[in-house]
Amino acid sequence: MVRYKATISYDGRLFAGFQRQPSERSVQEELEKTLQKLNSGNPVKVHGAGRTDSGVHAYGQVVHFDLPQARDVEKLRFGLDTQSPEDIDVVKVEQVSDEFHARYNKHSKTYEFLVDAGRPKNPMMRHYATHYPYPLDLTSMQEAIKDLVGTHDFTGFTASGTSVENKVRTITRATVAIDDKTGFFVFTFSGNGFLYKQVRNMVGTLLKIGNGRMPVSQIKTVLESKNRDLAGPTAAGNGLYLKEINYDE
Amino acid sequence: MVRYKATISYDGRLFAGFQRQPSERSVQEELEKTLQKLNSGNPVKVHGAGRTDSGVHAYGQVVHFDLPQARDVEKLRFGLDTQSPEDIDVVKVEQVSDEFHARYNKHSKTYEFLVDAGRPKNPMMRHYATHYPYPLDLTSMQEAIKDLVGTHDFTGFTASGTSVENKVRTITRATVAIDDKTGFFVFTFSGNGFLYKQVRNMVGTLLKIGNGRMPVSQIKTVLESKNRDLAGPTAAGNGLYLKEINYDE
Repeated sequence: MVRYKATISYDGRLFAGFQRQPSERSVQEELEKTLQKLNSGNPVKVHGAGRTDSGVHAYGQVVHFDLPQARDVEKLRFGLDTQSPEDIDVVKVEQVSDEFHARYNKHSKTYEFLVDAGRPKNPMMRHYATHYPYPLDLTSMQEAIKDLVGTHDFTGFTASGTSVENKVRTITRATVAIDDKTGFFVFTFSGNGFLYKQVRNMVGTLLKIGNGRMPVSQIKTVLESKNRDLAGPTAAGNGLYLKEINYDE
Repeated sequence: MVRYKATISYDGRLFAGFQRQPSERSVQEELEKTLQKLNSGNPVKVHGAGRTDSGVHAYGQVVHFDLPQARDVEKLRFGLDTQSPEDIDVVKVEQVSDEFHARYNKHSKTYEFLVDAGRPKNPMMRHYATHYPYPLDLTSMQEAIKDLVGTHDFTGFTASGTSVENKVRTITRATVAIDDKTGFFVFTFSGNGFLYKQVRNMVGTLLKIGNGRMPVSQIKTVLESKNRDLAGPTAAGNGLYLKEINYDE
């Protein structure tokens, strides 16, 4: 068997998420259906670097899969891209060693979260940025977001009831800025792994801070207390993008 | 009766166009339904500055309508905005004189057309820019587009069978550039009026020129011959935006 790594982008709006589910549409299922067609009807299992939730978008999700024979990677990319539904694009396909595993090989992920706090709203972006109809102070969010950088126990920022035991993760970069073209607030987070709903809960908390309804110190308070109830609400999935995945050599 | 002018934006994807139609969803119908609710159940007629076709978007469509009493314009805007479907936003409402007419008052319109000629494609933009999978030469399109500026008979660029008799229009601005953020080709046209499908036919011709399958002189040829068959194909509506309407004082 020959192993391939593929970089894909997708519009999360009409997916129940990346991972295959019994009765809902998933990115994994659509990719597996396309690969089965390209593999003479034989099923192909797709392994993703990570799940994305319902409504969450991706520019740089990474998957791997095996095919019985070596293929021209550009032809394979083209076939996968054109035969997948229009809300999935296949950006790149590479042949990799049998030891490569999209999920288990060490990597860092970068997520972006877009917030449209503007008047007028942009109806074209209603599924592609989260609308926040209240004033936001950039400076206090920029101050608060720094406290997320580093190695912390992120229990207070994950969904309660998450089964993962070790909730210590490292965030290497956390920034917020205003995009001068769109006027959107752009939150960017890079790290070695993120817990379930962690990014959306961090953003939800930062928005409360930006709106003055939580103090700038709230990030520290949530990290130290590990108490989910002290964090802000989970921000909507429609503003979240899995931007990039970088594997260690 | 008191007359109001409203500036609205909409995502054209799920509309059969601006104008009310017997059995398809239109922007006009949705606005009239909302206004009827805000007017104690009495019907209100909405007049648009112009039609937009199926799939065409707007940031700055202008409409006018009459209500029996004077209202606080910000409250009226808010009510119209929040009670209209989520793919319509009401940007601004102003009280205007009884003589104002969105369509008949002299105005200029600006349209923008977005072309995603990139690899990788952006699946989030598939309804909001037209994908063009062939190479495009910016310089030759920039050279050719200049020939559209001025007062011309645009018969060769309108849909055949258009009932309008006078096909002379004035284009005051016609440019094409690459947006450094998105990498999209952005075509911009301003003028005192556009014929049915004129912008999309001009763009379709420019794309053929940019791809080297028509000479740079083709714009002139179509204008002079008034022959629709010499122009390029009609570009898809999903890349077109009614950007702005400016009324003369």
